Amino acid sequence: MSGSSVGKIFKVTTWGESHGKNIGAVVDGCPAGLRLCEDDVQIDLDRRKPAQSQMTTSRKESDRVQIVSGVFNGVTTGSPIALVIENCNARPNDYESLKDVYRPAHADFTYEAKYGHRDFRGGGRSSGRETAARVAAGAVARKLLSEFGIEISAYTYSIGNVTIDKKQFDIDEAKHNALYMPDKNAALQAEQLVKKLFSEGDSVGGIIECVAFGVYAGLGEPVFEKLDAMIAQAVFSIGGVKGVEFGLGFGAASCCASFNNDEFYFDNGVKKRTNNCGGVLGGISDGSDIVFRVAVKPTPSIRKVQKTINSSNEEVEISIHGRHDPVIVPRAVVVVEAMTAITLADYALQNVCANIKNIKE
Amino acid sequence: MSGSSVGKIFKVTTWGESHGKNIGAVVDGCPAGLRLCEDDVQIDLDRRKPAQSQMTTSRKESDRVQIVSGVFNGVTTGSPIALVIENCNARPNDYESLKDVYRPAHADFTYEAKYGHRDFRGGGRSSGRETAARVAAGAVARKLLSEFGIEISAYTYSIGNVTIDKKQFDIDEAKHNALYMPDKNAALQAEQLVKKLFSEGDSVGGIIECVAFGVYAGLGEPVFEKLDAMIAQAVFSIGGVKGVEFGLGFGAASCCASFNNDEFYFDNGVKKRTNNCGGVLGGISDGSDIVFRVAVKPTPSIRKVQKTINSSNEEVEISIHGRHDPVIVPRAVVVVEAMTAITLADYALQNVCANIKNIKE
Amino acid sequence: MSGSSVGKIFKVTTWGESHGKNIGAVVDGCPAGLRLCEDDVQIDLDRRKPAQSQMTTSRKESDRVQIVSGVFNGVTTGSPIALVIENCNARPNDYESLKDVYRPAHADFTYEAKYGHRDFRGGGRSSGRETAARVAAGAVARKLLSEFGIEISAYTYSIGNVTIDKKQFDIDEAKHNALYMPDKNAALQAEQLVKKLFSEGDSVGGIIECVAFGVYAGLGEPVFEKLDAMIAQAVFSIGGVKGVEFGLGFGAASCCASFNNDEFYFDNGVKKRTNNCGGVLGGISDGSDIVFRVAVKPTPSIRKVQKTINSSNEEVEISIHGRHDPVIVPRAVVVVEAMTAITLADYALQNVCANIKNIKE
Amino acid sequence: MSGSSVGKIFKVTTWGESHGKNIGAVVDGCPAGLRLCEDDVQIDLDRRKPAQSQMTTSRKESDRVQIVSGVFNGVTTGSPIALVIENCNARPNDYESLKDVYRPAHADFTYEAKYGHRDFRGGGRSSGRETAARVAAGAVARKLLSEFGIEISAYTYSIGNVTIDKKQFDIDEAKHNALYMPDKNAALQAEQLVKKLFSEGDSVGGIIECVAFGVYAGLGEPVFEKLDAMIAQAVFSIGGVKGVEFGLGFGAASCCASFNNDEFYFDNGVKKRTNNCGGVLGGISDGSDIVFRVAVKPTPSIRKVQKTINSSNEEVEISIHGRHDPVIVPRAVVVVEAMTAITLADYALQNVCANIKNIKE
Repeated sequence: MSGSSVGKIFKVTTWGESHGKNIGAVVDGCPAGLRLCEDDVQIDLDRRKPAQSQMTTSRKESDRVQIVSGVFNGVTTGSPIALVIENCNARPNDYESLKDVYRPAHADFTYEAKYGHRDFRGGGRSSGRETAARVAAGAVARKLLSEFGIEISAYTYSIGNVTIDKKQFDIDEAKHNALYMPDKNAALQAEQLVKKLFSEGDSVGGIIECVAFGVYAGLGEPVFEKLDAMIAQAVFSIGGVKGVEFGLGFGAASCCASFNNDEFYFDNGVKKRTNNCGGVLGGISDGSDIVFRVAVKPTPSIRKVQKTINSSNEEVEISIHGRHDPVIVPRAVVVVEAMTAITLADYALQNVCANIKNIKE
Repeated sequence: MSGSSVGKIFKVTTWGESHGKNIGAVVDGCPAGLRLCEDDVQIDLDRRKPAQSQMTTSRKESDRVQIVSGVFNGVTTGSPIALVIENCNARPNDYESLKDVYRPAHADFTYEAKYGHRDFRGGGRSSGRETAARVAAGAVARKLLSEFGIEISAYTYSIGNVTIDKKQFDIDEAKHNALYMPDKNAALQAEQLVKKLFSEGDSVGGIIECVAFGVYAGLGEPVFEKLDAMIAQAVFSIGGVKGVEFGLGFGAASCCASFNNDEFYFDNGVKKRTNNCGGVLGGISDGSDIVFRVAVKPTPSIRKVQKTINSSNEEVEISIHGRHDPVIVPRAVVVVEAMTAITLADYALQNVCANIKNIKE
Repeated sequence: MSGSSVGKIFKVTTWGESHGKNIGAVVDGCPAGLRLCEDDVQIDLDRRKPAQSQMTTSRKESDRVQIVSGVFNGVTTGSPIALVIENCNARPNDYESLKDVYRPAHADFTYEAKYGHRDFRGGGRSSGRETAARVAAGAVARKLLSEFGIEISAYTYSIGNVTIDKKQFDIDEAKHNALYMPDKNAALQAEQLVKKLFSEGDSVGGIIECVAFGVYAGLGEPVFEKLDAMIAQAVFSIGGVKGVEFGLGFGAASCCASFNNDEFYFDNGVKKRTNNCGGVLGGISDGSDIVFRVAVKPTPSIRKVQKTINSSNEEVEISIHGRHDPVIVPRAVVVVEAMTAITLADYALQNVCANIKNIKE
Repeated sequence: MSGSSVGKIFKVTTWGESHGKNIGAVVDGCPAGLRLCEDDVQIDLDRRKPAQSQMTTSRKESDRVQIVSGVFNGVTTGSPIALVIENCNARPNDYESLKDVYRPAHADFTYEAKYGHRDFRGGGRSSGRETAARVAAGAVARKLLSEFGIEISAYTYSIGNVTIDKKQFDIDEAKHNALYMPDKNAALQAEQLVKKLFSEGDSVGGIIECVAFGVYAGLGEPVFEKLDAMIAQAVFSIGGVKGVEFGLGFGAASCCASFNNDEFYFDNGVKKRTNNCGGVLGGISDGSDIVFRVAVKPTPSIRKVQKTINSSNEEVEISIHGRHDPVIVPRAVVVVEAMTAITLADYALQNVCANIKNIKE
């Protein structure tokens, strides 16, 4: 019950289904006095919008956001900020044929098992469409974080077996290719891979890397609301995410402390010589960049014939046509940023009360 | 602030530091009518207790738990269950020499940055000692889950580069070797590795795999409190965890949907031919086993000399003596189980209200 | 921060200001399987709507509600229910003259002190307009409660010094007079009083009594979330409420236990000979009707000249013209019902998990 | 479920029953850097302790508090503060005779209805004994509030029909009479009343008034977590409370706006000429004193014979002997202060993030 809110002080609630009239988010707890306009939000929504390439769905989502409350004369008032987006290109009839079938790797069966019935139009609430509301709310968080000097940047780290070469790293490049890959060669290879799989009616997964810059030491609330734990929850709540790791991540499991431990030194502040921990120690940000990677599974909707059952428990074969991305990863990049921003905004605010000296000064 | 509670209905709050008089947990929201005694809790605490081997610390922790409230005549009353454990073997003086030093890969610096000062005795609140309270609370959750037919079993999947061979899998074996590894050969190899590193004053990381059996379809509360997201938060909140993955996990990122998608079939219930998703679809349990892996970093406290700084920002070298495990992994196994149990208990209760038909019947 | 949500399992979030484009509510955690349509909600919104009499404001609020998500084929899906209402009769310009003045007994000053600036149009977020969203959410709660056999009925108990005579109590009468008073004579007297005060440019307060029928024993979660405590919070959160009392209430403070204590007896269930406690013992419903009264202050906006200051701290005199009720009480009746319904719905759901026997049966 | 916590940032969890080994509280979210010792807490516990007079129970409660965690070198660390109190004078056998009887106006029946069984020893969790844990936590809140310049003072306003004369108001007097009444004459009269009723085997109720001084404008989080709403919840959660009113309270219901509205003026800050609103406007503190009154019912345990039923639904007569106060009011005074302090501490911390200017300065 009531799982559609996240955050304690900076609190985001989303609502809406893939093929309803609107989707939206309510951002409650954003401090008053922040300059905010619809363009601030639209920028991120546009980044999420599928490009007109073979890489992403051909569904046209204009995704114009409206700020319906919480902002007056261009400044937040401290009241809840309601963000509403129209679902303008919904085609509910596309899904009639699938209404009784449990699509493999989709939530059709689990929603029906849990709730007794489901909105089958485009996945209803479990659709990736819901992430538009997250991105809108994330844009507000991002604007707030900019006041604290914090910036977040995610990009595609790998598609299938094609991984970026960190020596070729170029974040501008990511903005110019359809796969958000910050390495031109890798992007070209990945594009070939995706096209090939698409022509075979298949799809592929990938890894997103996310970096938060400017995060000063102190964010995170041990022992259960550690910063990495809360980012992990936020990011795992995105559909299709199957793994999250910070710093060396799974690599830390196979190495020794003498390699893994990051030495401290002092240079105009406490610094670390390496960042194997990914910027979090004991669940609290340590002043280095926050770095983590996110494993995303292949788009489950494919043209290739799959065996499954229907709601009468009969075996059926399905081939899913319609507007589906052959890879979710590039569209998920901005969603990962959004969820990270929402989490950091909440913990930046919570941290203000950690120490009585900060409050009184 | 207030990050020491986890759970919405089945809610656990822990308190206590490594070298205070006691540590403890309050379990609020456990339904009345559950048979519960101190032995139910002691079993898990004993599993967490360091064995008398070179694998784990030589600190003797008798860890006798007392149930101080919430149980009457051997049955839970619905009131908060207070669990208290004595810290009987604390040696605060061991830590005097470290009180001004920021140990690499520890939380010394971040606690000081956040809170202005810190309890330096044995890591204070950030010590692994705190997990005893989690294990005690987890034992209550486990007892509750047994009423729902749910069981949880974790074990060591790898130590350094030594990984278990699934063909040799034997869960009983895990209970008999100091590393909790369910593969006798792997355990022997890993033991050699740990001994060697210990003699070098070093330590090593590893991976824990956790399986929850008997989890029926329906647990998890989309869209932010998805079951995998909440397990990830719970498990990432354990000190030293750097990565979590479900099912194929990071492996899913490099494969195709035609491989990754699990086909449904019907055989006395809706089943899947494979379990690449790890038992969660759309954030809701699908009736298969919940399967995930957890990357644990090497014990940060090592005898090997490390460079770091002290609180006056001067460079210093340290060699950490005292009672430290050369590998945390085996002791973390029961903690992973505990956090999983706490999460599943909460979502099993939340799920009762998902569907009005369940409530009225 | 983030004070616009109420409830733990059945969770309501409202958003919107008096003169924005829309106001709305998100109801998260309503069980799936409940039949719900816009008419179910509209009924209560229409009851809140000002009648075309001198008793209530002449602002025409058509208040058509739209259910934008969470309902599919006429049945709740378990996903958040978004309720949106247009603000069709907003006249922001009416308020230009008041934008720098702190109206006495209004929240102008406190919002500005807290948030630094405020939406001055019609009180912004602090306007009674916000209660339309509560009433919409309350209608969903009411529909859910009807499945549990619980009904809620509030009415005007007094206006100024005119109090209903319980011997003349007639709940149908309340539906037919503009003051919602269940006593024809009292209603007539009160109407005279209100007209007189209105002609003098003044306004008056009153008391609302609310009764919840069919509440079985067991609702409420001690020790902090006692049923009466949570109803009190919910009702005190309505603008203008200055007091709440259960059963004998303040009367209990001046009497003896031998009078106040309600004797138990058995007659086809455990019953009480009197209901001085108002249906709650130890914070848990006892199976009798829940009965409480709510003190509502006079409408603060009056035509009579008042002294106050403006935001430059200069003394000014104001006379507030515009569309204001000379008494808020009758419009608040349905809001009190709504907040009570939201609270009871949450605690009815929470109670399902109180006892392991209920869960397993 | 999980109703034993209160507060969002400054969060208090209590545990323990009347006749268990201990009771206690966990205060999570108290900022680091606050000087705190056991004496700070003991002062309030001693004020709660029954005096050796006929006014209060003869149970000797030494109530020594221990701070078991969260304080290091006399200063809070930001980690949860565990407060533990021994139940040293428990006499469980006193209650054997009552174990099957539903005492009128007690929670025996409702706990059994909700939880299926109950700890009958001295009321178990529903005992007034639990308030010792609240008072301990409240003392921490009070210490924190002193840093913000906020002080809280409650006293007995009336006992039965004996009400203090505000012209004779003397807060020092309250500290010297057993009834905490700040008016010597009223205290003498009330004492006579109580003695008379006690000799008749009866008890009486009363009203507590509470004032918070130094509360600057801005505390409270509309629209559901208004300051008065949250204080009302906190205070209604104390056993025996039947009504709460702010400022004029129920008196506001019978008066006109021209009387009730408090005029603003400026004199070294925004001030009000009267304080009919009790210091809260629109749910936010306005800089005046917070003033409210609390109706407390008569002690339900009386020697006078009462009719009731037992758990076999048979009619029985009971006469309750043992250690019971003939009036709860004086002991509840410090509990009202504690709950007010806990609430104000939470909202003082929450308010820090209301406005981005405060955070950045």
